[in-house]
Formats: sequence, structure tokens, C-alpha cells
Amino acid sequence: MSEGAFFKPLEGIRVIDFTHVYQGPTCTLILADFGADVIKVERPGTGDWSRSFGPYLHGESLPFISLNRNKRSIVVSLHEKEGKEITYKLVEKSDVVVNNFRPGTMERLGLGYEDLKKINPKIIYAESSGYGRTGPYAERNKPGHDKLGQAIGGLFEFKPGDLPRSVGRSTDLTSGMLLTIGILLALFEGEHTGMGQHVETNLLNAAVFMHLWQSAAILNPKDATKQLDQSFLEEVFQTTFRTADGYIALVPLFRVDLLKKLSYALGIKDLSEDPRFSTVEKMVENKDDLNETLQKVFLRKTTDEWIKILEAHNILCAPINTPEEAFRDPQVIHNGMIVEVTCPMVGKTRILGIPIKLSKTPGSIRRPPPLLGQHTDEILKELGYTVEQIADLRRRGIIR
Amino acid sequence: MSEGAFFKPLEGIRVIDFTHVYQGPTCTLILADFGADVIKVERPGTGDWSRSFGPYLHGESLPFISLNRNKRSIVVSLHEKEGKEITYKLVEKSDVVVNNFRPGTMERLGLGYEDLKKINPKIIYAESSGYGRTGPYAERNKPGHDKLGQAIGGLFEFKPGDLPRSVGRSTDLTSGMLLTIGILLALFEGEHTGMGQHVETNLLNAAVFMHLWQSAAILNPKDATKQLDQSFLEEVFQTTFRTADGYIALVPLFRVDLLKKLSYALGIKDLSEDPRFSTVEKMVENKDDLNETLQKVFLRKTTDEWIKILEAHNILCAPINTPEEAFRDPQVIHNGMIVEVTCPMVGKTRILGIPIKLSKTPGSIRRPPPLLGQHTDEILKELGYTVEQIADLRRRGIIR
Repeated sequence: MSEGAFFKPLEGIRVIDFTHVYQGPTCTLILADFGADVIKVERPGTGDWSRSFGPYLHGESLPFISLNRNKRSIVVSLHEKEGKEITYKLVEKSDVVVNNFRPGTMERLGLGYEDLKKINPKIIYAESSGYGRTGPYAERNKPGHDKLGQAIGGLFEFKPGDLPRSVGRSTDLTSGMLLTIGILLALFEGEHTGMGQHVETNLLNAAVFMHLWQSAAILNPKDATKQLDQSFLEEVFQTTFRTADGYIALVPLFRVDLLKKLSYALGIKDLSEDPRFSTVEKMVENKDDLNETLQKVFLRKTTDEWIKILEAHNILCAPINTPEEAFRDPQVIHNGMIVEVTCPMVGKTRILGIPIKLSKTPGSIRRPPPLLGQHTDEILKELGYTVEQIADLRRRGIIR
Repeated sequence: MSEGAFFKPLEGIRVIDFTHVYQGPTCTLILADFGADVIKVERPGTGDWSRSFGPYLHGESLPFISLNRNKRSIVVSLHEKEGKEITYKLVEKSDVVVNNFRPGTMERLGLGYEDLKKINPKIIYAESSGYGRTGPYAERNKPGHDKLGQAIGGLFEFKPGDLPRSVGRSTDLTSGMLLTIGILLALFEGEHTGMGQHVETNLLNAAVFMHLWQSAAILNPKDATKQLDQSFLEEVFQTTFRTADGYIALVPLFRVDLLKKLSYALGIKDLSEDPRFSTVEKMVENKDDLNETLQKVFLRKTTDEWIKILEAHNILCAPINTPEEAFRDPQVIHNGMIVEVTCPMVGKTRILGIPIKLSKTPGSIRRPPPLLGQHTDEILKELGYTVEQIADLRRRGIIR
């Protein structure tokens, strides 16, 4: 479980984590995996809202378990003067503050960037909202949500005769990664100047960033020539075929020589010599015939059999896994993408591994996701509070 | 176009960029946007393969334009002894090397990590492949591709009665961001130790990382109770409705009080008092009736009209934009997500802005995407080559 013999790249970096649900916790998950001391400041009662999201295991939230390993939890009421004092003391001794509240929320709590940089001018203050801190949506105080970021950001799928659909491209995950990049840039820069700064992204920026490859084609006129280019051909050629026992994915056929190669691998007569398929233009024109012909052939063997045959001919192909099958794939297991931890309430639990591999200072999973307020006492003691003071704060409902 | 008055967080960091197409160039785009001197080493003739990918503008690749601003291009034959010498000299004076070739390719060129760290022990050597450098797929030397990463990684959509479909969740983009995070972690760590390391990710790790929220639910048993949780309800409740002039997206109704609130905002009788919808269980049971009832109401006004009304009632909603509409959204424009550059061959071109905002050391777009070999002479002169040597290397086809 632990690769603790290695130095961690963010060892010694403390992150005060006011984030909840998905985009913010994704960011602090990555920072925690690489050694930062992430202190999750949670509100009394509910804590991080995602603690109540299903599906559940022994009544505990599986999404919360997915997103919060390697973090510590302190429960403090931010509405009480003494609760705020605790957070100010934490900020004094920290390097990074992260939140993903709606713009204005942290300011109302006295925890805005202007407030906190007075306490600690070196602080890196990172926040991710739905749409940005200024501009039309911010002025309307519009609440952010992954699905709304996708909708406004042009990530829904439009199909003729059907309602547009969200197809599971998470802007939360992307903005969480972008925020992580911003924080690491600020940490690196801070090594040279000793000063912090404000770092920001949002779901909408993440959504449009997800159009990166297509962006210049969306934003500019295109040559009016018939676009026999990859993006067009990807629409035309079927890339998924049914096999004797399941499905297979192919990278689409862009060229006549690839059809020749595929025919040879499939052990059928050379389709590229068929007058219907002898040029890419004709392949496009007779695509239904081509797809049908290929579909018939693929039904003759199992997915595994075809993968072996096509790989031997260096044809790009893959089995199509469900998420459950993906996590049983031997390469996914080999890559260390599944890790077992022992959660205090749930026992042995399997969680996602770390996708980025550093040779000298690898990430590691050192702690299971915390119970609500599991580290309140420990953290307050680190800040110099006595056992009596802690008991008093708890009695008065300021901490839990 | 330029925010050049600011210090850039990666100013002074040189990146030797052997990447092509999408995942690697995404990583070096982010590094370049934040001030790194990214030198794209391209092969004679074709250069980065994506230069030939459509759609095109004046014959130039729009995807290439999307992905390569802020970078310089040198064309060197890596198969010639003197070409290799040039790259070794570049590596000596650099901080980071990035590639996304199939595992083994860089080693065959004498450019593997073991080769280059002999030349520069401080080098950060980052690579992203299809599936990882070891393990079953690496042993089979299986070529990587975004679609194959999605297929094996469980990102295809399965719908009853239809073939599984790729739904555009790019593993290239995600692995490019993960690789960037790895490089920034290594740069930060290197500030303390003065030493480089090997950084790795791949499309398959990125694909399974995209299941982050769902991961623990996929990997563990779930409570057998009826799962009236968010992920289940998201499947049940229609979140897209047709309006008088288009579509609207809603965040799904999880609770009876939300249905009451929505009814009030829509100006209809309180549906939560209808016996068919009076509990979440009944709403699930009669979901078709509920969705139909709501659909009829939404047809009465335009999307803009509904957005105004629902926002006034603090109900989470959004217009559903096509990608083209997304880039016309006033908030997207306000956020600086569209930037105009002047490309040497194409003229004025609009490209994607920078999604991460740093207050003190913001990213900036300082250069248009390079022509193939545009900076060959400039870079060789920086390495100390004379005009005569450069002319000689060019005559002999080692550089272009």
C-alpha cells in the first residue's frame, strides 16, 4: 500500500481544503497523493456534501471514498468567531488554500483571498467555480454544476430526431486537473519569489478546453474543399463491430491500403479491389455496403480471436470493456491502478490508483479517506490548542 | 494578445518536445502557455503527423494550429549522427524532454532516458504511451490510440439494442494534463534536489482515472438497498427538454421539494401534490408521466425566457449549446477563452485561450503555431553553430 521509502514531491506542503463534492476534491486528491498534507475543513453535521451521495457501502458514500484518500478531516464551524480563528491559524501555517464554492461565499465567511493574504502573504489561493469570478454568469450568481458546464460549454451530443444528451464528459474532473496545474505552477514560481498568488479556473473554461483539438476548426472558416479528413471519416466508417461473443473497436479506415491490409488480416478477398471501395470517395459513397460486409465477417470469431489476429497484422483494435471489465484488464492491474486500503468504517476497500508515475518521488496512498472530523483533535493540537481548550470548543459546538 | 509585462512561471525552463498529434502536444501547450521555451523537434518532410490532419484553412491543419501556439520548431533527422548530436546539445541545455512515441522508439533512436540522463542528470524525462512501458500490452508492442484507450478503459457507452459507441471523452486530453502535472511535480521537486527523474502516464491510466467519481462503486460491492441515489436518479429523470425554440438542460430532480419549487417556477399546479409524484419512489415509478407533463410546459416559452424565469427561482438550468454556440457565449468570451493570433501562412486566426488564470504570473499567447522548421536556424545559432555549418547541415539533408 505504501511507497513510503521515497521522498514525496509535495512533502512539507500544507493545503487547507475547503472543497466539496467533485472538482475541488479531485485537485486536492492529486496534491495529497504526491505528499501534500491536505486538511479538509468540513462543516458540522453534513461535512463535505458528497458524504451523503450514493451508491453506498455499509451506509458510507462510495464517491466520497473515491475522492478523499490521503486527506485529514477537521470539523469547524466557520460561522463562529473562534472557528474562524482556527482556520486563520491553519492558513498562517499553510502554503495553499483551495475552495470550489460559488464566488462570494468565501468572502462572506471572511476567508476571501484579500482576507487570507493579510494573514499569510505567501499563500497560494486557488478556487474553481462554475463559470468564473466575474462576467455575466457571476453577476447573476448562477450556481455551477457539471451538467450545466457541459451544456453551456457545448459538450452535449446532438443527434437528429433525439433530445441532446450529456455523454458523461466530466467538466468537474477536467477543471480539477486544471486547478492542480495552476497550483503547481504557483508553487514552482513561489520557490523563486517567496510569494503566493491567486489561481483560478472554472467548469466552463474546462468545458471549452475539452474542445482543444477541434477549437481552431470551430473558431475559423474552413477550406471549402470536400473534407475527406480524419474527423469526417471518423463519422463515416463504423468503428465498432459485433463479434461472435461481444464487440471489437477498430480505428477507422482512412486509406485504401488500410482496407487492403484489413481484408488480408480478416482472411477475405481484397475489398480494396471491389469497385465499390476502390477509392476513399467510393468507400464513403458505399459505406453501408462496406460496414455490412465487414460486420458479417466479424461475427465469425470471438473478440479475443480477432484481437490476436488483427494485432499480428499491426491493425489498431481493442476489446470494448464495460467499466467493470476495464478494472479487470491485466494492464490496468499491472499499472497499479487498483489499490486496497482499509477504511475505518467499511473495512477493506478497493480504490483507484495513481495514474502519474514518477520514478524518484512517486505518489503513494498512505491514508484511507477520513471519517468526518477524524483529525480535529490531532490538528488542533498541532496548532497548539490544549486538551482543555479542545474539550471546551467541542462542548460549545465550534468543533466536532 | 500578449500579457508579456508579467513574469512567466516557467520562464527559463526549456522543454525539448518530441511529441506528436494530441496527448504530448497538449502537455507541451500548457507548459509553453506558462512561459517554457518549448522546442518542437520535427522530422524532415512530414513533421508532426498532425500537420497533415484536417480540417484545413488555406491548406494548413486546423488541429495543428489548435495545439501548437507558443512553440518553436526545428527540423532534424534523428537517424543521422549529426542530427543526434544536435538533439544531445539541446538536451544538455534543457530541463525537460517529452515524447509520446510507442515504448522503445526513443531508445532505438539513442534518445531513451538512460541515454539522456548521462548527458544531463538533471533532465526530467516525461513520456506518455498508449498503455504503459511494461505489462501485457507493452510486451505485445500494441500501438496506442485515443479510441483504443477509451475502449479498453471502459469509456464507451453501452445502450441496449445498439452497438457500443465512443462518446468523445478524449483520453489524449486527459493524459496530456496528467503528464503536465507529473512534469510540474518533478520540476518543483527538482528545485530542492537539483536532480531530474522519469515521469510517465498513458492513455489507459487516463481512461480509468476518468472513472474517478465512480471508481470505488465499480471496484467494491454496494449496499443492496434500493439505490435511490444521485447516479440512479440521473438515469431516471429527464434533464433535457425541448422549448419553443430549442433546448434547456436541468439538473435532475432528486427530491419532492425540488419538484414543488420547479412547479412554482413554471407557473403550473404543484406536481408534488399529484399522487403520482408525491414521493421520490412514485416519481421514479411514474417517470414517463412526469417527463411528459414537464415537456408540454417547456414547449410554451423559448429557452431564454425559461432560463430567466428558472434562474430567478434559483433552479439549476442552462441553455444547451453546440460547440459553435459555446464559443459565442458571453461568459466564454469574458473569460478570455478566445484569442486572435496572426499565423504566418493563414493570417488572422482565432484559437483557444488559457483556461487557468494566475493573478501574478498569468499564461500568455506570445507566438503563433510554428511553420515546419521555422526556428531551425535560430535554435542552431543559440547552440553555437555557425552560418556555414548550418548551411552545410542543410545541404546534406540533416536539418531543414
